[in-house]
Amino acid sequence: MDSTEESEMIKILLQYQHGFFISKVLLTASELGVFDLLLESGESQTSTMIAERLNTSPIGMERLLETCVGLKLLRMERKGDKDYFGNTKFANLFLAKSSPKSQYNYLKLFSEIGYSSFQYLTDAVREGKNQLESIHGPSTKDFFQAMYSSEEKIEKYFSALGNTWSLFGREVVSAFDLSHFPTIYDLGGGSGVLAKECTSLYPNSTVTIFDLPQVVERANKHFVASKEHRITFQEGNFFKDPVLKLTCTFWLESCTSGMRKVCAVVYKTSQSLQTRWWSVDS
Amino acid sequence: MDSTEESEMIKILLQYQHGFFISKVLLTASELGVFDLLLESGESQTSTMIAERLNTSPIGMERLLETCVGLKLLRMERKGDKDYFGNTKFANLFLAKSSPKSQYNYLKLFSEIGYSSFQYLTDAVREGKNQLESIHGPSTKDFFQAMYSSEEKIEKYFSALGNTWSLFGREVVSAFDLSHFPTIYDLGGGSGVLAKECTSLYPNSTVTIFDLPQVVERANKHFVASKEHRITFQEGNFFKDPVLKLTCTFWLESCTSGMRKVCAVVYKTSQSLQTRWWSVDS
Repeated sequence: MDSTEESEMIKILLQYQHGFFISKVLLTASELGVFDLLLESGESQTSTMIAERLNTSPIGMERLLETCVGLKLLRMERKGDKDYFGNTKFANLFLAKSSPKSQYNYLKLFSEIGYSSFQYLTDAVREGKNQLESIHGPSTKDFFQAMYSSEEKIEKYFSALGNTWSLFGREVVSAFDLSHFPTIYDLGGGSGVLAKECTSLYPNSTVTIFDLPQVVERANKHFVASKEHRITFQEGNFFKDPVLKLTCTFWLESCTSGMRKVCAVVYKTSQSLQTRWWSVDS
Repeated sequence: MDSTEESEMIKILLQYQHGFFISKVLLTASELGVFDLLLESGESQTSTMIAERLNTSPIGMERLLETCVGLKLLRMERKGDKDYFGNTKFANLFLAKSSPKSQYNYLKLFSEIGYSSFQYLTDAVREGKNQLESIHGPSTKDFFQAMYSSEEKIEKYFSALGNTWSLFGREVVSAFDLSHFPTIYDLGGGSGVLAKECTSLYPNSTVTIFDLPQVVERANKHFVASKEHRITFQEGNFFKDPVLKLTCTFWLESCTSGMRKVCAVVYKTSQSLQTRWWSVDS
């Protein structure tokens, strides 16, 4: 192996080994409000000014800001004898809380839950099962039980999901042309962020969100129902209810009764959870 | 902003957000012995065979191995109706424990200490001080106190440092030509890994390692003294002892008494800790 090849491999090694440094720097700067302050003020500021406004230690803030410059989350310029920090386009778009594409809630949830969970990765591989009990206390059997255990946790979870759909939702709903389908089912559609993408892209479709009763109750209250007459809810549990069978029956009936178009989109997330969409043209 | 630019930024965002996944996958596969097994056996194996040999769950191991393929730590090939996994060059070089450039001890230490410490990054920035008490218990004031609190911890710390010097040691000691200097001082030289690099590269030099009494005692016992007559130790604490003054005095005396060459190498680590090397030609 030549030395260039080894140098390249060492670069990757360092990036892999220290990946968690970067994840946490991203969250800490977001959490403390660095990117919000710099977006709102509209002009670059010294680390002393930022530390004062955000009520942190000056030296701690200075080090954090310099790290953010290294990661291209911030830019730095010298004026007189002082360094001034400002957001990069990246920070304005993804890290400031007020941006429509902000990932703050996702970062926060994954830092609180994901980061802690990965402490137990070796145990999870040994035992072949999740380690939720080590994180959320005994008798926590599955992820959704942990996420739905309080109103506050549901709120956090849906805010985080909303963040990811703000990046990828449009791409998902436009992957297939669904414009010919008047009714779209979103299984596990939660607070309705993706359903909104659907109704916005397909003005002639309505969307039915199928989710757990406590989710439907909450979504009805907070998010969608008041403004979106083309979005409705149906209570159920797609891990237990025979949704597939139900939908297939519906499909068969639709065909035999002369309905023309049926569409199914199936995809797999990183947790191997399948979400299915079905749509039937009447 | 065009969509290509945004796609590029999203790629970086995902890499930053999920950096900790990768750090932990690297460690878990190392810790379970995946890379050692595949290096020693010399041939690729199925996930079932690997899980059996390493005493883990089959499904947990299968998922881990597939993730490692994604990160190019392993390669996978299909034979018949089964997938076989083998080490990449990267894994053989850096991740198998028996490789001279193995980073296993470094990964392990940073996973145990670094990963936990970064849980408290936001507090550290707010308060402007380390959060060692949250991790190692009250009255832990500084990093070295934590690292040197038991024989086992010293062992871990030095093994980890040894790993990094196996990658960068030769580069550091050859950054300046020290061949004209018969005596080299390595301040905070620990177990002597870097001193060994020095004596190997500079056959006419001797190295004096300056470190804390408990470190010197241990290093004398375990590592160097028995084999390397050109390495000696001196007890001290470079945070407290006036090393610089001592060395400068020595330098002045050397000059006035007709010694010819003096060399100093100063560098800064990521923790802003300065290490100095002094060498005087008699």
